Amino acid sequence: MTMDVIETIRNRRSIRRYLDRPVEDDKVEQILEAGRWAPSADNLQPWHFIVVRDGVMRQKLAQASGWGKFLKDSPVAIVVLGDPQRSSKYHLADPHNAVMNMILTAYSLGLGSCWVDVRDMSSEQEFKKLLHVPKSMRVICAVAIGYPAEERTGRRRPLSEIVSYETYE
Amino acid sequence: MTMDVIETIRNRRSIRRYLDRPVEDDKVEQILEAGRWAPSADNLQPWHFIVVRDGVMRQKLAQASGWGKFLKDSPVAIVVLGDPQRSSKYHLADPHNAVMNMILTAYSLGLGSCWVDVRDMSSEQEFKKLLHVPKSMRVICAVAIGYPAEERTGRRRPLSEIVSYETYE
Repeated sequence: MTMDVIETIRNRRSIRRYLDRPVEDDKVEQILEAGRWAPSADNLQPWHFIVVRDGVMRQKLAQASGWGKFLKDSPVAIVVLGDPQRSSKYHLADPHNAVMNMILTAYSLGLGSCWVDVRDMSSEQEFKKLLHVPKSMRVICAVAIGYPAEERTGRRRPLSEIVSYETYE
Repeated sequence: MTMDVIETIRNRRSIRRYLDRPVEDDKVEQILEAGRWAPSADNLQPWHFIVVRDGVMRQKLAQASGWGKFLKDSPVAIVVLGDPQRSSKYHLADPHNAVMNMILTAYSLGLGSCWVDVRDMSSEQEFKKLLHVPKSMRVICAVAIGYPAEERTGRRRPLSEIVSYETYE
């Protein structure tokens, strides 16, 4: 038993500052499992996850990512790839489902995380070179994961602003 | 208290057959709340949700969606829009985070759901016309929601096939 799903969704925040404390292997595995069970169009599962712990590599990824500087501080980075050879139509969209599952699970395990988009062309090329990613694959994002060293509050638009009934208005 | 997040992620399946039983308003609201709290780039929240219960409209959406015929049978359809005026770069990607939160929450409340992509151009145009969606918005998908009339098992690729450590190989 970890945490209620609605509580998790409601309280999870993006965390960009991390404690200098390693993340246990079994927690990383539970996060990967959560990604594995994500839904995808026709169940094609067009994703691949690279777990990066090496500090030198994380520093290089942080630099390549542009604004994701905190990847150098999070003890774990999971780089998420999309595979056009498995799903030509949904290889960019479906890996997001896996990421959402992973960041919810991270939170439920007491970890903080932050989603770093790397689809900017030059960041993607740099990531591919650093991590020996095959030409055919796409880099979607990196997920920074670690024990949180900050607390964050969240703001969202009210339901009245984002929900309509029966038609748009 | 509804359900453990890891259990939810592990056991949720896509459901395409529904009982002829209405979905309570407060459950629909909890699902919308879960969508509302999704993360988005720069917290721009470029999404809008249209809750459709009307049976005639659901039949029209089912037809317009192509393969999402079961939208006519699910008592609720939530149509998810992306707003390029809020986020020019992530209006197609970020609404997926909201959908993932919504389908997990639906499952935790005893409901089944299925994600129906409608980004095919002719489906999207038909949805926009039917639901009076402004020209500037994009239709991402419809989420069918109802009490499940089927049980489904899931298959996923093993972790050994989708995970690498430190580099792709």
